[in-house]
Amino acid sequence: MAQRPIVTLTTDFGLNDHFVGTVKGAILSIAPEVEIVDICHSVQAFDILDGALALAQAYSYFPTRTVHLVVVDPGVGSARRPILASSDKYNFVAPDNGVLSLMYARDERLNVRHVTSDHYFLQPLSNTFHGRDVFAPVAAYLAKGVDQEKFGPEITDFVRFNAPKPKAVDAKTLRGIVLKVDRFGNLITNITPQDAPALLQTPAPGFKIVVGKREVTALQSNYADGAPNELFAILGSMGYLEIAANRTAAAQLASAGKGTEVSLVLEGAAAAGNGQ
Amino acid sequence: MAQRPIVTLTTDFGLNDHFVGTVKGAILSIAPEVEIVDICHSVQAFDILDGALALAQAYSYFPTRTVHLVVVDPGVGSARRPILASSDKYNFVAPDNGVLSLMYARDERLNVRHVTSDHYFLQPLSNTFHGRDVFAPVAAYLAKGVDQEKFGPEITDFVRFNAPKPKAVDAKTLRGIVLKVDRFGNLITNITPQDAPALLQTPAPGFKIVVGKREVTALQSNYADGAPNELFAILGSMGYLEIAANRTAAAQLASAGKGTEVSLVLEGAAAAGNGQ
Amino acid sequence: MAQRPIVTLTTDFGLNDHFVGTVKGAILSIAPEVEIVDICHSVQAFDILDGALALAQAYSYFPTRTVHLVVVDPGVGSARRPILASSDKYNFVAPDNGVLSLMYARDERLNVRHVTSDHYFLQPLSNTFHGRDVFAPVAAYLAKGVDQEKFGPEITDFVRFNAPKPKAVDAKTLRGIVLKVDRFGNLITNITPQDAPALLQTPAPGFKIVVGKREVTALQSNYADGAPNELFAILGSMGYLEIAANRTAAAQLASAGKGTEVSLVLEGAAAAGNGQ
Repeated sequence: MAQRPIVTLTTDFGLNDHFVGTVKGAILSIAPEVEIVDICHSVQAFDILDGALALAQAYSYFPTRTVHLVVVDPGVGSARRPILASSDKYNFVAPDNGVLSLMYARDERLNVRHVTSDHYFLQPLSNTFHGRDVFAPVAAYLAKGVDQEKFGPEITDFVRFNAPKPKAVDAKTLRGIVLKVDRFGNLITNITPQDAPALLQTPAPGFKIVVGKREVTALQSNYADGAPNELFAILGSMGYLEIAANRTAAAQLASAGKGTEVSLVLEGAAAAGNGQ
Repeated sequence: MAQRPIVTLTTDFGLNDHFVGTVKGAILSIAPEVEIVDICHSVQAFDILDGALALAQAYSYFPTRTVHLVVVDPGVGSARRPILASSDKYNFVAPDNGVLSLMYARDERLNVRHVTSDHYFLQPLSNTFHGRDVFAPVAAYLAKGVDQEKFGPEITDFVRFNAPKPKAVDAKTLRGIVLKVDRFGNLITNITPQDAPALLQTPAPGFKIVVGKREVTALQSNYADGAPNELFAILGSMGYLEIAANRTAAAQLASAGKGTEVSLVLEGAAAAGNGQ
Repeated sequence: MAQRPIVTLTTDFGLNDHFVGTVKGAILSIAPEVEIVDICHSVQAFDILDGALALAQAYSYFPTRTVHLVVVDPGVGSARRPILASSDKYNFVAPDNGVLSLMYARDERLNVRHVTSDHYFLQPLSNTFHGRDVFAPVAAYLAKGVDQEKFGPEITDFVRFNAPKPKAVDAKTLRGIVLKVDRFGNLITNITPQDAPALLQTPAPGFKIVVGKREVTALQSNYADGAPNELFAILGSMGYLEIAANRTAAAQLASAGKGTEVSLVLEGAAAAGNGQ
């Protein structure tokens, strides 16, 4: 059985409207052999960092040659460019607004093009739904095997930003933020093991995390080890330090949410590695 | 690679239950080669017009011969008929309650059948889940290539309704309503460019739109051109005049929602074209 | 066209995060020929019975040899075992926490294995996302045709529970609960026709159902037969007695929800059959 080309979708379109279905129709009309896979359509509306996070957590689990289509596009219809970015393994189609930034930071060998070949776009071209009229057809033609060069010229001035990183307040204290709250109420911080390597030493040092209205002093290796209503820190599957609770939403226990400040204080150890 | 037959789903089943998954299983058990594509499952419960709108915005973007399955069916188990409608390009399977009305209005060459061949239905046949027991198998057999005539006799008295149209209040004023609020908070009105062609003239005439608690006097061609917290009118991708805001929910700014009245007053120009 | 192997997904991951997309990528990277079908991702977080109900309502509608992947896994990373269960028709991959219990109760010829062959797992293996690292790859290799014996030894002490059953309070009265509220606001009780066969006699006996703040005395055979704002009982497609209303959420009318007590009082007839 021949492998079908895969196109994934990551958008802030939500699932309440026809938007996602229409994009899928536009892809399949050009490339009916494509397998379309939803990564997430619940990126917060207009939130480019949230889209970048969703993509970064999923794209590398897909087969080589997958086309990742990302549409979080508050500038739709304005001068922002549609782009096609290619790494050794994947192709990405997105607006040039930084939504690929976390991918850029991981895949060093990149080729980025400004998609200018508008004969690939649907006509009439709307000003407000480029997911349907621009990005879907470009992804479809890519999945069909059209050469990258045909879509437009290579560029180097594509938009990229750095995800917010924790800052060293003093030798023992890192201050970060909650990047997002996941479905289970876990608070995903922007603190990585590299930011606080001492936390992972054996035995683990004493530490204190202040988040929202609560202090957290326990570190667990899985959610089920937490006592009822206990908040604990855990190194989550996203690669970040999370504040979690066993079968309960940590966000509620801590009265914390996206953007809440998080302070990590390590006892007797320098918060080495931060500021990298 | 042979093209797989496509069946799309548009329902008010939501995504919180097993309903959609069960329908997909029922289709695949009959026609495992089918590619199932979700258009939308968040049609407002029991809301036939909302379902008609979702379908109308998406179906024509799919490949020829796609089977569009639509289940918004408050009369399930009652005497309402299951129907099969065929245009030049597509097949539609739905309850005969008007949910195909907006498609009827666009595809003039239609053939509509009352599906009476109950040997295609799942047994035992429930009274409450015809999406699973009636519509899914009919769509699956259609996708497999069963001739339309085998499903039942042609009918001409199928249920259809007209979508609500704006009304001329006086020579300068059109009164419409908000058809729906989309994921981004845009207010989709029922006013089309044909209803107010003067709006699209160059230069655009002065105008005023009253919606909810706000007056709108600006017209933009893309969302990003709006000033912060400014409400503006825009001709959206659905083919209707929308009231929108840049990276903000217009619905909240205007305290307006589905069903809210919208008045468009054109300065010095007749609101030509309305009432068509 | 060769039939593609099918893997279904039933999880409590929700659709707001990257979790589902990442699981799909992990499956397709191992078995790109697989057709992935969502049953439901909105199982209530950590709620094993709710997951068991969703699976039980859908799995038997899928083609023979479908692999059903179920991840409702509050014990992820703890000592709970990953298992592979096989009936005559289907394979199931899940944590051993009882989430397959309702399936166990229906498929008597079962073979259950403890999945111990960790060379099938993704590396590095996280402690918090076994949907991605353990269950997805096992389902993918199963769908590819790897023999069941290769995944681990057969076990008989797998976790199973009985769904809550209604109890006879006296000769005329059954007391049950609301198992769930569906998308339309229907109250799905745990009372089956076998629990109260008298209800289905012709003519139906008088009865009274007390639920939340309301009494229900009507039995309808389809939703559309209900008068406006009338609560009525109906034998729903899930095989349970439901309390419903025509185009209205019964849950709101009755101020009832998941877990609400439901009393069924049959007039002049023994509530025969309960307690089976």
